[in-house]
Amino acid sequence: MLKINSLLTAAMLAGSVSVANAWDALPAEAPAPADNPTTPAKVALGKMLYHDPRLSSTGTVSCASCHNVMLGGEDNRPVAMGVNGQTGGRSAPTVWNSAFNAVQFWDGRAESLEAQAAGPVTNPIEMGMKSWDEVVARLESIDGYKKAFNDAFGGNPISKDLATKAIAAYERTLITPNSPYDKFVGGEKSALTEQQVRGMNKVAELGCTGCHSGPAFNGPGMFQKFPVYSNGMYQAKYHFNKDLGLAEVTKKPDDEHKFKVPTLRNIALTAPYFHNGSVKTLAEAVKVMAKLQLNKDLSDSEIADIVAFLNALTGEFPSQTMPTLPGTPGSTFN
Amino acid sequence: MLKINSLLTAAMLAGSVSVANAWDALPAEAPAPADNPTTPAKVALGKMLYHDPRLSSTGTVSCASCHNVMLGGEDNRPVAMGVNGQTGGRSAPTVWNSAFNAVQFWDGRAESLEAQAAGPVTNPIEMGMKSWDEVVARLESIDGYKKAFNDAFGGNPISKDLATKAIAAYERTLITPNSPYDKFVGGEKSALTEQQVRGMNKVAELGCTGCHSGPAFNGPGMFQKFPVYSNGMYQAKYHFNKDLGLAEVTKKPDDEHKFKVPTLRNIALTAPYFHNGSVKTLAEAVKVMAKLQLNKDLSDSEIADIVAFLNALTGEFPSQTMPTLPGTPGSTFN
Repeated sequence: MLKINSLLTAAMLAGSVSVANAWDALPAEAPAPADNPTTPAKVALGKMLYHDPRLSSTGTVSCASCHNVMLGGEDNRPVAMGVNGQTGGRSAPTVWNSAFNAVQFWDGRAESLEAQAAGPVTNPIEMGMKSWDEVVARLESIDGYKKAFNDAFGGNPISKDLATKAIAAYERTLITPNSPYDKFVGGEKSALTEQQVRGMNKVAELGCTGCHSGPAFNGPGMFQKFPVYSNGMYQAKYHFNKDLGLAEVTKKPDDEHKFKVPTLRNIALTAPYFHNGSVKTLAEAVKVMAKLQLNKDLSDSEIADIVAFLNALTGEFPSQTMPTLPGTPGSTFN
Repeated sequence: MLKINSLLTAAMLAGSVSVANAWDALPAEAPAPADNPTTPAKVALGKMLYHDPRLSSTGTVSCASCHNVMLGGEDNRPVAMGVNGQTGGRSAPTVWNSAFNAVQFWDGRAESLEAQAAGPVTNPIEMGMKSWDEVVARLESIDGYKKAFNDAFGGNPISKDLATKAIAAYERTLITPNSPYDKFVGGEKSALTEQQVRGMNKVAELGCTGCHSGPAFNGPGMFQKFPVYSNGMYQAKYHFNKDLGLAEVTKKPDDEHKFKVPTLRNIALTAPYFHNGSVKTLAEAVKVMAKLQLNKDLSDSEIADIVAFLNALTGEFPSQTMPTLPGTPGSTFN
């Protein structure tokens, strides 16, 4: 606790971290909205839908294809790849602990996991379905889904609303507790190495936690401009300015280059980095962030300390059984 | 047993089914080759490799993409789709119970699961890796794989040979026992409906079990010519003759249009049908097979009975936990 207290003091002196949100362990459960309480039947259905490639036009891309829960919750690619090998301009964010994001997508255009889940399915370069009506018709043709929806939603007809509620309910279970950091915060001092503690202190001292705050290190839901400081070399190398972020949605000049603050949880598993996946290593990502957001040049040893700390944010992945997806029609006599 | 005995008699009278192999239940375990005994550590590693999309050039296609164990062991597509949306001419066969195939691939060109596993990884239209050297280098760069190979193969260096052995060891665990048919054969008479029993008798009477014999209904490993009887209408509709089958490998005229006899296990889940996936429903597949292989025209009620029987070959899918795939490098300071 001494270390934490001195850290908090340092952070407060630096004026860049809210005391209330600093160094919280990850909650074991995520809150659900009033109109979509989490139930086992919804989670079971959502897990099926999440892993079902038949929710894409080609039958080859599921939610899990880009947000792979067997990996760090994404695809380790610079930008995601949808149906027919198509790619867009953004890197898939991790689904792990996404229940703790106040908004979803890099540009924060979805206010809930439910709203997020509706998007990729009908995006032409992601899952490529023509419409949710087409998705619903496909689900209705599969007897096993009729039963699973009935179990989860008691007789209401299959719909976009219910499908996205089920997917969101499943995603709320995707939480990775007990990282070395969480254990340290819980009082287990040996859970972090000396280097990781140095990195933790440095993160507060620099002001990284000004935005990356709270238990998921993703801020209180706010957007942040990126880059704050322009830098010709990094712009030439990584093309960060091409994507207008929130302004692509709102068309407001004030929103240009504003992005959702992404979680730092499990960041060691989610290379490459940034909204466009242009930076290959965590060390380079730390260096770039310090320069572009804080206008600070870090030494190699400072970077190494911070990377060591970020590695302490890798949590425990809950054991999951694979869903058995109900059979596709075409098998019965008609 | 009375029913089974009368059925065996009918089958023997029809002269088209080997008594020894008729109506066997599926074994609970698959035999492993002497040089690759199945061990838990190999199965664990094989499960990771099987589900890892990083074994493809784009990082988007794993073995499981086309041979999906959450579905009926394949992709429910006419022909499989590999990296960058590329497609070939053949439909992905099911991985479930593939341990009971005497040969692998539609053209039977692989003599073992080990040999089969080596193929798609470096096929340019499937997983698209340049070479197994590239695969091995990628695996060697991932610390978690170094450990998993060490656990499975005691210190031997990562290699194509060991990777394919692990994948094959995992695939040997993919068995679906306790179908209604297996229960019926085991003495539980009520496990099949009257219609399913009629279909079972019809299958023997027609001679389907001449090729589709043994516990997996996939014959004693032989190849079979398809189609045996030419038919202009079906050829125009389904283009079965385009694929030379075994002759594409051997270049021998005698091998033209010879294919491995596929299993009938779980066939209700693996639409569409045939080597080129050209037939959408099981009913049409039964009709086509009777005409092209036996020169028989089945009535709608005969087809319905056989389809009902084939639905009784859907087994129980063992519960599997999802593997946690080791993290991709790019996350450490260097």
